[in-house]
Amino acid sequence: MKPRLAPSLSLDQAPRFHAHPFDDDKLKEECGIFGVIGVTDASNFVALGLHALQHRGQEAGGIVCYHPDAGFNSARRFGYVRDNFTSQDVMETLPGPLAIGHVRYSTAGSKAAAIRDVQPFFGEFSRGGAAIAHNGNITNAIALRRELIERGSIFQSSSDSECIIHLMARSLQKSVPERMEDALRRVEGAFSVVAMTRTKLIGVRDPLGVRPLVLGKVADGWCLSSETCALDIIGAEFVREIEPGEMVVITSDGKVDSRRPFRSQPSKFCIFEHVYFSRPDSIIGGKSVYDTRRRIGVELAREAPVEADLVCPVPDSGTPAAIGFSQESGIPYAMGIIRNQYMGRTFIEPTEQIRNMGVRLKLNVNRALIKGKRVVLVDDSVVRGTTSRKIKEMILDAGAAEVHFRIASPPTAWPCFYGVDTPQREKLLAATMTEDEMRDHLRVDSLRFVSLDGLYRAAGEAEGRDNACPQYCDACFSGEYPVEPSDMIEKGFELKATE
Amino acid sequence: MKPRLAPSLSLDQAPRFHAHPFDDDKLKEECGIFGVIGVTDASNFVALGLHALQHRGQEAGGIVCYHPDAGFNSARRFGYVRDNFTSQDVMETLPGPLAIGHVRYSTAGSKAAAIRDVQPFFGEFSRGGAAIAHNGNITNAIALRRELIERGSIFQSSSDSECIIHLMARSLQKSVPERMEDALRRVEGAFSVVAMTRTKLIGVRDPLGVRPLVLGKVADGWCLSSETCALDIIGAEFVREIEPGEMVVITSDGKVDSRRPFRSQPSKFCIFEHVYFSRPDSIIGGKSVYDTRRRIGVELAREAPVEADLVCPVPDSGTPAAIGFSQESGIPYAMGIIRNQYMGRTFIEPTEQIRNMGVRLKLNVNRALIKGKRVVLVDDSVVRGTTSRKIKEMILDAGAAEVHFRIASPPTAWPCFYGVDTPQREKLLAATMTEDEMRDHLRVDSLRFVSLDGLYRAAGEAEGRDNACPQYCDACFSGEYPVEPSDMIEKGFELKATE
Amino acid sequence: MKPRLAPSLSLDQAPRFHAHPFDDDKLKEECGIFGVIGVTDASNFVALGLHALQHRGQEAGGIVCYHPDAGFNSARRFGYVRDNFTSQDVMETLPGPLAIGHVRYSTAGSKAAAIRDVQPFFGEFSRGGAAIAHNGNITNAIALRRELIERGSIFQSSSDSECIIHLMARSLQKSVPERMEDALRRVEGAFSVVAMTRTKLIGVRDPLGVRPLVLGKVADGWCLSSETCALDIIGAEFVREIEPGEMVVITSDGKVDSRRPFRSQPSKFCIFEHVYFSRPDSIIGGKSVYDTRRRIGVELAREAPVEADLVCPVPDSGTPAAIGFSQESGIPYAMGIIRNQYMGRTFIEPTEQIRNMGVRLKLNVNRALIKGKRVVLVDDSVVRGTTSRKIKEMILDAGAAEVHFRIASPPTAWPCFYGVDTPQREKLLAATMTEDEMRDHLRVDSLRFVSLDGLYRAAGEAEGRDNACPQYCDACFSGEYPVEPSDMIEKGFELKATE
Amino acid sequence: MKPRLAPSLSLDQAPRFHAHPFDDDKLKEECGIFGVIGVTDASNFVALGLHALQHRGQEAGGIVCYHPDAGFNSARRFGYVRDNFTSQDVMETLPGPLAIGHVRYSTAGSKAAAIRDVQPFFGEFSRGGAAIAHNGNITNAIALRRELIERGSIFQSSSDSECIIHLMARSLQKSVPERMEDALRRVEGAFSVVAMTRTKLIGVRDPLGVRPLVLGKVADGWCLSSETCALDIIGAEFVREIEPGEMVVITSDGKVDSRRPFRSQPSKFCIFEHVYFSRPDSIIGGKSVYDTRRRIGVELAREAPVEADLVCPVPDSGTPAAIGFSQESGIPYAMGIIRNQYMGRTFIEPTEQIRNMGVRLKLNVNRALIKGKRVVLVDDSVVRGTTSRKIKEMILDAGAAEVHFRIASPPTAWPCFYGVDTPQREKLLAATMTEDEMRDHLRVDSLRFVSLDGLYRAAGEAEGRDNACPQYCDACFSGEYPVEPSDMIEKGFELKATE
Repeated sequence: MKPRLAPSLSLDQAPRFHAHPFDDDKLKEECGIFGVIGVTDASNFVALGLHALQHRGQEAGGIVCYHPDAGFNSARRFGYVRDNFTSQDVMETLPGPLAIGHVRYSTAGSKAAAIRDVQPFFGEFSRGGAAIAHNGNITNAIALRRELIERGSIFQSSSDSECIIHLMARSLQKSVPERMEDALRRVEGAFSVVAMTRTKLIGVRDPLGVRPLVLGKVADGWCLSSETCALDIIGAEFVREIEPGEMVVITSDGKVDSRRPFRSQPSKFCIFEHVYFSRPDSIIGGKSVYDTRRRIGVELAREAPVEADLVCPVPDSGTPAAIGFSQESGIPYAMGIIRNQYMGRTFIEPTEQIRNMGVRLKLNVNRALIKGKRVVLVDDSVVRGTTSRKIKEMILDAGAAEVHFRIASPPTAWPCFYGVDTPQREKLLAATMTEDEMRDHLRVDSLRFVSLDGLYRAAGEAEGRDNACPQYCDACFSGEYPVEPSDMIEKGFELKATE
Repeated sequence: MKPRLAPSLSLDQAPRFHAHPFDDDKLKEECGIFGVIGVTDASNFVALGLHALQHRGQEAGGIVCYHPDAGFNSARRFGYVRDNFTSQDVMETLPGPLAIGHVRYSTAGSKAAAIRDVQPFFGEFSRGGAAIAHNGNITNAIALRRELIERGSIFQSSSDSECIIHLMARSLQKSVPERMEDALRRVEGAFSVVAMTRTKLIGVRDPLGVRPLVLGKVADGWCLSSETCALDIIGAEFVREIEPGEMVVITSDGKVDSRRPFRSQPSKFCIFEHVYFSRPDSIIGGKSVYDTRRRIGVELAREAPVEADLVCPVPDSGTPAAIGFSQESGIPYAMGIIRNQYMGRTFIEPTEQIRNMGVRLKLNVNRALIKGKRVVLVDDSVVRGTTSRKIKEMILDAGAAEVHFRIASPPTAWPCFYGVDTPQREKLLAATMTEDEMRDHLRVDSLRFVSLDGLYRAAGEAEGRDNACPQYCDACFSGEYPVEPSDMIEKGFELKATE
Repeated sequence: MKPRLAPSLSLDQAPRFHAHPFDDDKLKEECGIFGVIGVTDASNFVALGLHALQHRGQEAGGIVCYHPDAGFNSARRFGYVRDNFTSQDVMETLPGPLAIGHVRYSTAGSKAAAIRDVQPFFGEFSRGGAAIAHNGNITNAIALRRELIERGSIFQSSSDSECIIHLMARSLQKSVPERMEDALRRVEGAFSVVAMTRTKLIGVRDPLGVRPLVLGKVADGWCLSSETCALDIIGAEFVREIEPGEMVVITSDGKVDSRRPFRSQPSKFCIFEHVYFSRPDSIIGGKSVYDTRRRIGVELAREAPVEADLVCPVPDSGTPAAIGFSQESGIPYAMGIIRNQYMGRTFIEPTEQIRNMGVRLKLNVNRALIKGKRVVLVDDSVVRGTTSRKIKEMILDAGAAEVHFRIASPPTAWPCFYGVDTPQREKLLAATMTEDEMRDHLRVDSLRFVSLDGLYRAAGEAEGRDNACPQYCDACFSGEYPVEPSDMIEKGFELKATE
Repeated sequence: MKPRLAPSLSLDQAPRFHAHPFDDDKLKEECGIFGVIGVTDASNFVALGLHALQHRGQEAGGIVCYHPDAGFNSARRFGYVRDNFTSQDVMETLPGPLAIGHVRYSTAGSKAAAIRDVQPFFGEFSRGGAAIAHNGNITNAIALRRELIERGSIFQSSSDSECIIHLMARSLQKSVPERMEDALRRVEGAFSVVAMTRTKLIGVRDPLGVRPLVLGKVADGWCLSSETCALDIIGAEFVREIEPGEMVVITSDGKVDSRRPFRSQPSKFCIFEHVYFSRPDSIIGGKSVYDTRRRIGVELAREAPVEADLVCPVPDSGTPAAIGFSQESGIPYAMGIIRNQYMGRTFIEPTEQIRNMGVRLKLNVNRALIKGKRVVLVDDSVVRGTTSRKIKEMILDAGAAEVHFRIASPPTAWPCFYGVDTPQREKLLAATMTEDEMRDHLRVDSLRFVSLDGLYRAAGEAEGRDNACPQYCDACFSGEYPVEPSDMIEKGFELKATE
């Protein structure tokens, strides 16, 4: 008999609301992590860092810290960092020079989120406690959980990440870093982890380096962050990326020890971090994310030119690529669609009198600008296609002469199992339609996606994709999964047939 | 190195407020438990039962239930049952024919309560989950916790009760009742436990039967409750008390199976349940608690008569004994002290202009009645003595001619380690003073406590206390602990020297 | 066209909950008022005073204060004083040496209470502002409101009391006390008012003195309060009652000026204040309210003796009369009904399996005590009779041999229009039935009410009621209204036919 | 003696938070208004309309509606429309076919906002009630208030707008539209007002037409809105602008009656609505606001060209002008500054270790893009100059070679008294410095503002400003106030000396 993944439903449910205009039609990064050691009031730094990483998870956030007198303390809350971790009242309860934090987006399947699913997770071991914050997804979590329960572990959450802390608790090793190495060697999938003991800050990336993790220097201390934009907010200096398969153990006296607990493998960084997940002001592999996106627009303009009067981004994620498209094509860039800055929960729609209210609440067409024009709309991706269709209708209602969609990523045809919230495969428009079928389905004058090679070029691979050994994880486009999604296969997921 | 009992401080702290006038100067029962099987909407019954048991724990409450379709669900909240478990919104999330619940008062030591300390506790085992609710205290909890952590268990709370669920998770037995027997054989101390699986309601009392647990019949189902008053509220019929050392396993089809997992011992029911903890409308051992208390007053009037004009209870717990004292002595009974029904949190006291505000917020003397009178004040117990002194001052300020205290229990000279919140021994007035010294300390005209034999007689033991083998646990009065408090001895507590 | 009394429904609705077991079957006092001048942090004193007067109104409370630097400040909240006016945060916003406050119970008719109905009311006049707090009811409020609206006044609340502040604003007089005299001469009905300007505390009682108001001395300042119990809580000395038709104007330097703005009339204090409204530890006319109630029990035992085994109060309001009945009759007093101290909002009642849950949530019978006994139940009044019937059933279910009701007031046959929340006349049991019919309706072995003369005797009128010119307002019993309820007559209320 | 404008401080204070990155350094529109008649569930339409107008006031919002059965109902709340007026619970209390609403930003001076300051205001008159919502500012409010208080009116808020409803209450006219004409003829300043009775929706603009108001058609009903973007959200058709000095009275049967209650004057629409206040997707005078802003950028590029590598907007308000500047100058447009989408309340800044955190919380520089570049920064306006300076520092810290500021409005040298929150004159950078002094103060390589003529040209006046009779109100730039600010002059404000 299989264990239930979510044995108990808590009442402390989170309100779901979406900060992006079409959140329900986007792939969503599930986590951002941040840690700092060697500073006064470390939790304040973590709060700021998490605020800068809020785009990686808006549902909930948590901080664990340690102070020699006050011991470990923690706070976990639903909602934005800015609302939960800014008051003097809360922050005073989180003292000490060492802290880690986590922001999360819920997984697609969970109907009711519980506060106990909010990381960091904490465990008291026989020689002292540790806390962990995990970005990614463990692909053998179901099997691990079953095994751990049979041995007598009691799970408190429905999170795959909890396996790590139980594996650590049961490790025969003594020190926390050694327990962690021991545990992570049993774990498959994608993981960037920030952890802490009473005296150490620890960072690890999985052997493929699917999720990002960077090292920064702040005052006399060190910090670890999912992205560089969170270093900027606290005035930290970007030192380097943690390498795939690397573990760094940073002590209170500022020593950074690098270890290699895993077998070496070719790296497979998630290419979608370039397309959408990461913030445009972050730097990946030495390059501005914004500029990579702009260059995708340039590639698109070359691969799929069109005669038109205006290039308009779908706000806000299509903006950099639209600028690039405009620059390469010479077609003027314009804000044809205006976003309402005060979006939030669902309004009650006046019955039957108003259609498409969902879109209008968030976006409005700049009618006087669009009327009679041939418009190129640039968006970052097409997932279900539902919003693309609504936007097209808004633009046509406003009197546009032609609508041409240009998409700054290849067709998203496969779900991600490495820490991203994706619909089931059959919900992905590109899983069942060709580019032409999608164009007809969306009823636009033209629809073009950037090629995989174009995307790789924009990301800095001058030669495009190395199909023998791709430089990135691009499973959502290619269906080539660098780590076997074993839990999903057990549940019936079918891998792409190898030709 | 010893493990920390409360590794992490949560921010979800409970507001502390006291429903009784002098809560900080009373022994406090720490828990009430209730369970029901075989009814529609079991959680509603549990909510009602817990409401009737609210006097056993006001800080927090929790309910776990099971429905074949919805699985296990739970809700745990700080505050009163009436405020947390009455709305349609909440109760609809707790469906099913089987539920257990718990109300708790926090232990003396814990500065900040956390929601994860609120029971029932839940564990998913390899063949299905179980939830437990515990009234009592495990006297070897620290040793058990240390052992379990060394084996890799991760504790989520600072509660001693969590040991039980981890012991169950690690049991080599398969069924939940067998796992529970296995676990409870490792546990020392006082425990009445109500537990549930997907199909069974389980009740257990420790071999000494220190804490109460009764069985009731409601409609086609069965219920377990700390006290009979909670049977009345749901219209259940009182069937019998669960016996010391007995485990009952009740199945969905209404079968009640009785087991005896422990070695038989003479029972040691807590005599303070008669004095203060239990509700006056509950029935223990076939006798009305109210009437036992009234009879303590009768014994007091015989043992310690006094010439006076009025007998006044200290509201509300002194009322039954005051009635008995009046009836036996012929001195008129009067409400000389009136309690404010709207007590709550602390007021800001106007600086320096008002003294003793703490008492006046809660009680007021009936001046016109008291003036010039010789007053007998009847209270249930003296713990620290701080409030006895304040009340005496109020009565004298109002112009009483004499004040005579009569206490409906023997001097409380020893802390309880079996599930009651007691101050440290040195804080107990009777630990350091004789009756005469206490009288002088309180500056009253006379002070008398009922004798241990008088108390036993009022509780139905016509011959008084059997000193060779006392019929009750009276450790708080006698210092004779029926179970060795091993954790406390490890921490330095000294047992009474045996003569 | 008539103006609407409640033009706009606010969303800031108050949760209704009842602190007394059968609140829906009691007459309810609608207000308590308190004011203080000449002390540091006057608002803290007012908060304490209102807490002591909470029994006079549980729905909402408000405080207005004045500080020479901070000006007028105010706070109005739904809920208990203890929950709203105790935090440092709130009290710090209410500085100054002068403050007044108000607690209120909502009127029967208002479906949704709004925060703007919560007193004190404030008005800025051309020579400075004033705030007023009113206990009572204006019987010509509808006519006054209509007139004021026609002149251009804008009402902000649905309260009759708001008329007073508008009349003051329009007065041709200059000083606030003179404006107040001017305004109150236009007002009919019952009113005790506490008011304040920047430099004065003012108290007034209507010419009949229907509602109470007392003067106290605290430190170097003075206070005004509905009852003496609120003087005790702040350690104030009771000086005297404000006399019917008297206005006192107290200045910051401690001068108390007494005025007589109204034509002199025989006083008509509300006799129900003795029966139920006032707190038992208050003193009215030099006599303990508790003792008056006890003496009603004595009168009842003389007027309506019965052979029985136990005298039990209906908690808590029947207690003093039950003690008196027991003392006069010699029948032992016993707590046959136990009240749950944790009452609150409505529980969801398990469907069809439990009857009379409403009562059981609040009260429980002491079964072991009652069984086989002939029981005298003493209650303070019978309004609708619904709860009397439920209690009788509980007592019989518990096995009582006989049930005799003794009521510590005459039959309540007429609604009150002077500041008390009464059901419509046809809902009053005594309006449509004789004593015998009520006995049969309630199905008890006997039912007797104290006589009007007995009640007057207990209240200190040795000769009983002076029918030519009654010493009290007893309209709820006699139907003799000392002030014509003109608004109600306009709405169709029919006065008692004069024989 | 002068009356106090804010007699009483409420505790219901609003949390202040800013949705725009540098809200404290922007002029702020104070209100948005919306009304609808002749639709089902009018309040839902109003909620949607207010959501689209949220940029005109984020502090609070209110809705009043009328239903023949339910009468007038209202809700007023602090915070965003999306958070307050979207739940079924709230919206169900606001029934009916007729409703008006208001969003507001607080005035600069008020320290503590009170819920009673939140519009719409409601008054019950002798022939029925009316509600009003006001955008603008009454320049003789203090004098009017003093007069009304002397006549006996009681003000409930500290808002200037409340004068209107009191003037209406006291009007000798009978119908609400006539009372309104009567009242508004006494009022000086800027006002667009939406009002309602039980059967009519009314809209008025002051004779100069300073604030906008437009008429729309939705289904069988009509609506009035501050801007056209709120028509789009409910699918309403834009009919026409209400003309300066026009009053429209719309009845339930759909009849629109136009009146001219004021003396005709040349119109003076606020030119800052084009610069910043209005939403870019609104249409004013037939022209897209976005395009006007883009054309300001074009004018700027012509008037103040510069050699540079990148044109970057200060997000988000500088974006359209930056696009125009890039298009005219040929310098590439780039997102050199990235805005954090999750801004909110103030964070606790880690002490002394981090400077300029305020800016970094909201904005981050795209370092990899900016480094070594000559950057043109385009912003909409300079008010205090504090944020311009911080942004310049961020850009230089990131390694920019040169920083050139181009401002899409003339120097803001005078406060606005017509419904905009402006700092006092001495706080305006341009009030005390020349353009060159400002450049030196900000330490940038160059600083240029668009000329008044350039602004007028971009706004569609081909010949630029008509200095004899300016086509717009541009008092904030020119100091030429079309309505004398009499309250402010009384308080000591000095008008620009006429040469």
